[in-house]
Amino acid sequence: PDVQSTRDERALAIEQVGIRGVRHPLTVRSKAGSFPSVGTFEMNVALPAHVKGTHMSRFIALLQKQEAAVDSTTAVTLVREMLPLLNATEGSVQFTYIHFVKKSAPVSGVESLMDYEVTWTAQARQNVSGTLETQLHLRAVVPVMSLCPCSKEISEFGAHNQRSHVTMSVVLDPQTKMTVEDLVSAAESEASSELWGLLKRPDEKWVTEHSYSNPKFVEDLVRDVAGRLQQDQRIQSLVVEAENFESIHNHSAYAKISLTK
Amino acid sequence: PDVQSTRDERALAIEQVGIRGVRHPLTVRSKAGSFPSVGTFEMNVALPAHVKGTHMSRFIALLQKQEAAVDSTTAVTLVREMLPLLNATEGSVQFTYIHFVKKSAPVSGVESLMDYEVTWTAQARQNVSGTLETQLHLRAVVPVMSLCPCSKEISEFGAHNQRSHVTMSVVLDPQTKMTVEDLVSAAESEASSELWGLLKRPDEKWVTEHSYSNPKFVEDLVRDVAGRLQQDQRIQSLVVEAENFESIHNHSAYAKISLTK
Amino acid sequence: PDVQSTRDERALAIEQVGIRGVRHPLTVRSKAGSFPSVGTFEMNVALPAHVKGTHMSRFIALLQKQEAAVDSTTAVTLVREMLPLLNATEGSVQFTYIHFVKKSAPVSGVESLMDYEVTWTAQARQNVSGTLETQLHLRAVVPVMSLCPCSKEISEFGAHNQRSHVTMSVVLDPQTKMTVEDLVSAAESEASSELWGLLKRPDEKWVTEHSYSNPKFVEDLVRDVAGRLQQDQRIQSLVVEAENFESIHNHSAYAKISLTK
Amino acid sequence: PDVQSTRDERALAIEQVGIRGVRHPLTVRSKAGSFPSVGTFEMNVALPAHVKGTHMSRFIALLQKQEAAVDSTTAVTLVREMLPLLNATEGSVQFTYIHFVKKSAPVSGVESLMDYEVTWTAQARQNVSGTLETQLHLRAVVPVMSLCPCSKEISEFGAHNQRSHVTMSVVLDPQTKMTVEDLVSAAESEASSELWGLLKRPDEKWVTEHSYSNPKFVEDLVRDVAGRLQQDQRIQSLVVEAENFESIHNHSAYAKISLTK
Repeated sequence: PDVQSTRDERALAIEQVGIRGVRHPLTVRSKAGSFPSVGTFEMNVALPAHVKGTHMSRFIALLQKQEAAVDSTTAVTLVREMLPLLNATEGSVQFTYIHFVKKSAPVSGVESLMDYEVTWTAQARQNVSGTLETQLHLRAVVPVMSLCPCSKEISEFGAHNQRSHVTMSVVLDPQTKMTVEDLVSAAESEASSELWGLLKRPDEKWVTEHSYSNPKFVEDLVRDVAGRLQQDQRIQSLVVEAENFESIHNHSAYAKISLTK
Repeated sequence: PDVQSTRDERALAIEQVGIRGVRHPLTVRSKAGSFPSVGTFEMNVALPAHVKGTHMSRFIALLQKQEAAVDSTTAVTLVREMLPLLNATEGSVQFTYIHFVKKSAPVSGVESLMDYEVTWTAQARQNVSGTLETQLHLRAVVPVMSLCPCSKEISEFGAHNQRSHVTMSVVLDPQTKMTVEDLVSAAESEASSELWGLLKRPDEKWVTEHSYSNPKFVEDLVRDVAGRLQQDQRIQSLVVEAENFESIHNHSAYAKISLTK
Repeated sequence: PDVQSTRDERALAIEQVGIRGVRHPLTVRSKAGSFPSVGTFEMNVALPAHVKGTHMSRFIALLQKQEAAVDSTTAVTLVREMLPLLNATEGSVQFTYIHFVKKSAPVSGVESLMDYEVTWTAQARQNVSGTLETQLHLRAVVPVMSLCPCSKEISEFGAHNQRSHVTMSVVLDPQTKMTVEDLVSAAESEASSELWGLLKRPDEKWVTEHSYSNPKFVEDLVRDVAGRLQQDQRIQSLVVEAENFESIHNHSAYAKISLTK
Repeated sequence: PDVQSTRDERALAIEQVGIRGVRHPLTVRSKAGSFPSVGTFEMNVALPAHVKGTHMSRFIALLQKQEAAVDSTTAVTLVREMLPLLNATEGSVQFTYIHFVKKSAPVSGVESLMDYEVTWTAQARQNVSGTLETQLHLRAVVPVMSLCPCSKEISEFGAHNQRSHVTMSVVLDPQTKMTVEDLVSAAESEASSELWGLLKRPDEKWVTEHSYSNPKFVEDLVRDVAGRLQQDQRIQSLVVEAENFESIHNHSAYAKISLTK
């Protein structure tokens, strides 16, 4: 009684069907070595109009075999394995995890980890000639500091500043070697200041003065980050968003730029 | 020193810039009368390449004047007021709130409120002839019960069931009178069972037996809801998603259908 | 077959049993008039060891009748009605909602709403002589601005600042008239600066300079707010917490003081 | 200019001051081997009334050195190292992470991972004789399936069921070897059914029928889990909570038992 495989008469294809919210332990291979993390996975296939249901347990079975260290090739590898297992010609694999980067404080050089939410997505589709076309997406949320140019300009002393999130979503050539660190540094280098886990007193002085000398509106943040990513040949299209958790309000300022090359 | 109005040389237009996460008290006008709620607002405009910044306080000033009861016309009204205030030719207003509907239990008829997360979005753009084109989106997240056909089929007795979220996002003709209640009922009528706040014993018996007699895969949920919305002339395009918070797993089953007419 | 009322043999009394996560529309009566909001309710009773189960639907039935405007007396009124309905001698009613206060900007005087998460909890217990003892708790989360004294001290110019949450939980004499506004103002007056929804340019200058002249560590925040609440005769005991969403780190600084008089 | 070390005149000791929301990569040593995860840390000390501030960066410096695999001894080890670094006589270290357990499906025996949110907390306090007293807390949130006895009793066929969270917080003798797996199994063995990541058809039949044969109210869940933990000599006190995400309502049923031995 394989209910899922019976014929469906509703004439409605399903764009995506699968599983989400599945957590899985990950070893992440990064520029500076490997580190432990936890991935949250979404795996979907397209379902033709005449098929009643997909086989949910096969997504999980595939994921359970995932024990190798993950990197920029993992999502593409998984989606290529997934399609035949699910008898599908189109599908996607996505996982979100916390990426750690060891950074040195700007003056003392003391080392500490920064954490970033990163998402890899691979989409695959079998075209008419039977070959598989894949697309690879990378998304990173980078916490930075923004300092308000207007507040600085109009005030005798001081300037309000706050934590901001710069979110970059880029489409990559699956063959290209783009690292999470490359993408993260685009946001950090264009903020009023980047953040660190551990700052000694001379570092805190540096961050305070550097950000004061480097004020940015939310509009400046998205323009400067988008401008930098635009010049990276490895990126096919990009969306840059910035959200400032305003220290003078209980709401956010927000801006977004999308560019297709 | 109006920093925001200075000329920008980076040659990058900004798709959206504005405020988000602003909470505002709302009186909602619905089919069955008015009720209190709280809206969370996002308001954005497009910013041309040569302008450095928008005027963030003007979004808030506009929102502070919003004291009239809200309904399906509010988002369009606000976006039309917003564009000239911000010197913009394109922008959007979005608000999310909890919508309450008084429902009668299926057997006892006892009344109680059900709560739904609802989002209205109005986008406006001034075309070359100077007239404003607007588009109206309505999104509702409807909690329902789903009962697994496979589990019922293979088991001697019982069938696993769970809470599911059916999320419908539709584009409406701004002139049309589509109510939240109309949209919600499309999801509720196609689930294994709809939910109620208050059920007496005979109602609980009815819901249990009704859902057992009406099993649905996550694929069935999106197909049946999309099929119903497809026939509604007021809807120009639709996305239907369903997420089952599986009672036998610690993850969700998920499906999605998008249709443009 | 009233399963819930059968005798339980496990000899384990239940401290709390009831419902949570129930949303209900509210009209809130405040110092400056009424406003709409949404409450999220928890209602619990204690269950003696020999009783198998409570009657869940009676909690909801009671809540459905709640149509009057809510204020500081509502939680106590509800818990007093609840106990006999549930045949209980002990129980609690709690609701959390967004409280709005209209504030005037510090220089321009322009008005806008600020939003605060507020929770009222009433606990009631029948003592041996049969009289009902009630206790009333009020909790408010107040978003404020904190500016770092160390950063200011060590830097040539500027000082990092950020949004902070001051959370105050106080036990009140149920007879006393303590308003949410009274409690909120204790946190706002002791922060580097309070926040506003809408600030014009002269206001932004004032907030920037005022906070720079008024630096506070997270330790200062909890000490100054606790010191102020300690002197309020209406408060029987208090917990003050502060969390600074540090603009130079991706984590928070946190402090807490508890005082019983 | 060490602002934090200046004398404070407000005569208010601070119960807890430190950092929270710090994410750190973890290798977790468990019964069945090691696995990668991510911890979210809180570290606090008590601050005497006469000291103005603590040294926030020292908490982070300590955490950055944490590279060894974590287990039930880690929180105690960290809190013992932390107190002298912060010149404190009292403090606590807490970390929350996702714990993975490889489980075999009940009929097919196919293996998959289940994920649980786990929190270890160690509190330490130097007593008058100068020795350090420590207390160790373990908390686990275990997702299970609950099936309603009333719904089963009153219905001709079927019974509503849903995902539930059983949350156990226990105080342990720091010397005792209690594993996360031991605690988790107490909740899983007392639920209508435990959950698995991967179930084949015969497993799904087993779970469906097993849960139908094993109905539990939210009251039964907390009583049966508390009854089992009560007999474990390694546990000094316990709090058991259960929350049923009701499949027939849009709210939860909740119960709680606290026991001190």
